[in-house]
Amino acid sequence: MKKNLKLGLFGFGCVGQGLHHVLHETNGIKAEIKKICIKNPNKKRPLSDHFFTLNADDILLDPEIDVVVELIDDASAAFGITKKALQNGKHVVTANKKMLAENLEEIFHLQQQYDKSVLYEGAVCGSIPILRNLEEYYDNDLISGIEGIFNGSTNYILTKVFEERKNYGDALRQAQDLGFAESDPSLDVKGFDPKFKLVIAIAHAFGVFVKPEQIFNIGIDSISDLDLKFAREKGYGIKLVARAIKSGHDVFGLVAPQFVDAHHPLSSVRNEYNAVTVQGAFSEKQLFVGKGAGSYPTGSAVLSDISALTYDYRYEYKKLHQQANLEFSNETSIEAFVRFPHGTAISIQDFEEFQSGYASNGQHYMLGRVNLKKLAEWATWENVGIILSPEARFVTKTEKSEVLTYSAA
Amino acid sequence: MKKNLKLGLFGFGCVGQGLHHVLHETNGIKAEIKKICIKNPNKKRPLSDHFFTLNADDILLDPEIDVVVELIDDASAAFGITKKALQNGKHVVTANKKMLAENLEEIFHLQQQYDKSVLYEGAVCGSIPILRNLEEYYDNDLISGIEGIFNGSTNYILTKVFEERKNYGDALRQAQDLGFAESDPSLDVKGFDPKFKLVIAIAHAFGVFVKPEQIFNIGIDSISDLDLKFAREKGYGIKLVARAIKSGHDVFGLVAPQFVDAHHPLSSVRNEYNAVTVQGAFSEKQLFVGKGAGSYPTGSAVLSDISALTYDYRYEYKKLHQQANLEFSNETSIEAFVRFPHGTAISIQDFEEFQSGYASNGQHYMLGRVNLKKLAEWATWENVGIILSPEARFVTKTEKSEVLTYSAA
Repeated sequence: MKKNLKLGLFGFGCVGQGLHHVLHETNGIKAEIKKICIKNPNKKRPLSDHFFTLNADDILLDPEIDVVVELIDDASAAFGITKKALQNGKHVVTANKKMLAENLEEIFHLQQQYDKSVLYEGAVCGSIPILRNLEEYYDNDLISGIEGIFNGSTNYILTKVFEERKNYGDALRQAQDLGFAESDPSLDVKGFDPKFKLVIAIAHAFGVFVKPEQIFNIGIDSISDLDLKFAREKGYGIKLVARAIKSGHDVFGLVAPQFVDAHHPLSSVRNEYNAVTVQGAFSEKQLFVGKGAGSYPTGSAVLSDISALTYDYRYEYKKLHQQANLEFSNETSIEAFVRFPHGTAISIQDFEEFQSGYASNGQHYMLGRVNLKKLAEWATWENVGIILSPEARFVTKTEKSEVLTYSAA
Repeated sequence: MKKNLKLGLFGFGCVGQGLHHVLHETNGIKAEIKKICIKNPNKKRPLSDHFFTLNADDILLDPEIDVVVELIDDASAAFGITKKALQNGKHVVTANKKMLAENLEEIFHLQQQYDKSVLYEGAVCGSIPILRNLEEYYDNDLISGIEGIFNGSTNYILTKVFEERKNYGDALRQAQDLGFAESDPSLDVKGFDPKFKLVIAIAHAFGVFVKPEQIFNIGIDSISDLDLKFAREKGYGIKLVARAIKSGHDVFGLVAPQFVDAHHPLSSVRNEYNAVTVQGAFSEKQLFVGKGAGSYPTGSAVLSDISALTYDYRYEYKKLHQQANLEFSNETSIEAFVRFPHGTAISIQDFEEFQSGYASNGQHYMLGRVNLKKLAEWATWENVGIILSPEARFVTKTEKSEVLTYSAA
């Protein structure tokens, strides 16, 4: 019952080339590349000329092409391609998390309108099949939270900083040399990239569409040598953690660095690896680990999406139909370590629950539970460092825990 | 499009009771328990009498019941129930790995014959959705191997032995007290339980039906204090690892203890947790971690299977159709550490590749690559200990590696 698919590619970088190679080498996937749209006609290409075009319509208007595989950087151009592909009766496979995060609700509606499928497993945590697992395996109302390391570059940097006692700049340069970090690393180190992925994951985990600007992202770029020293003294590592939980009718979400001790499930996730834990009521925690950065993991996920289309797979967005009354909210607080220079307008009274404080050489360190909005504001201030506590979790005013628990009857 | 399913349960222990509780508490799964078949009429039950019956046919012949959930211990009785349920037009959900491993090919054919579904995610690695991932996500010919910790009880014991320097007997008793190990622990510690799971996983990973007796299982019951001392000196842990790989037209498989160093992906999998790594050509390794022992993880997987049936899900056994020419084989060798008392008929010449040896106080230690059949035979001898090397992998005579690799074009 498998279909023979004809593909039109946009972009022919590492992922595109790897895809071509694997499709060519294997018989398992009934798909072949017909045309590749590129931007630069002068680059040397490893394939014969008739594969290439500079004109998007050679793909988008070709009735023979079933699937558009979009592998370009530019989010707004990618959205244009996606839209036009759907309008012209083609499925779309994409790994463009920014484009998806910014337009997910519209992309959802476009799929219904044109009765075509958009698959994007490669957009979230590289090769980890998290979206399909959220869709297919956790297709009931028992999922209460997801959290994880959604960005391979920053995890690589943090691993090097801790394990090889590299300084931040050297670790960043090394990540760039290995192709894990973008030449403009701010999307990664400021936490935007994992936020885009969190937006997508929230839609599939809880059936809620959130705009990227609704979720706060605190990056790892303000981590100082003092923070590292503090972490080492305590035996902690630092991970950039994306998380979202369901609590009553609220969904809370945040991207922020967090201290982790040696027994934390994410502490052993090293280098460019990504990890996601899914918290279910009955199954407790599931951990998924796989490579998150680099072209192979993305290529692998894109390949699986293409393979799924040969079986007419599409996301059902099941949770969307099950959880009509959930809403994203930032009305919550979380425990964090806050470092700031003397003279900064942060005091004990700002904490909803103050744990401990310490001052030395003009620097203050305070540990306690802080409202999310306040925390996000502090994070934008000069020389303020924010790292969540190892046990950090969202706490609401009423502290009503909606996490389902089970006790044997 | 969800169906309202009526369930008939066989067995009402922890898993069954938890299942009832969760179905009762949530609205996400459109399923209700109609009847429960029990063996002992005198046990006090937390539900009213009209739920219970001693007569299997009250469930198997009730046309209103859509799904039989089989949660009993006895493998041959469970197979009888499964067969009769299918013959009477009912789907089956089961977590009975022994029953499945011994009858998988027949169960596959029965599903086709009666056009009904048998789901058994709970049979392999508790709450980890590994079967569905193998079926749905790795639905192409790019999967080259799976390996992992498939048994929670033995992993709990090995964790305690290493981390708390407990002796073997104490750790086993503690595992039994916590309900992780059976009162007859030999299925676990001799490696039969993970072998049953490996049989099931091989069918879904490679499309090959293997009989349990075809796969060698070396347990952890012969690990001695000397082995532990050796491991500690080297900074190794020990894990009971189940593995299978595809090489050319062969599928090799084995269950055996293995030394792991701190950076091995399985080394951080502690206590009753299970883990599976899936080796793909393009995606490199995926790691799945979740609780493997205890009634909640099994209940969670059973619940997901029931939920999947409300969407008419069934395993397609895709690999079976894709890989018609694969066969299970033991014609391979693997690197192991072998300990034996002086006078045992093991010599350097028995190794296909000898690495090193050492003798002290009447004990010999040899490290090298050994043919699988020889290794399995040694494992049955008195006072012989066998633990695979940290880097152990199957090696064939021709050493022809069929693992697909990718190099950028």
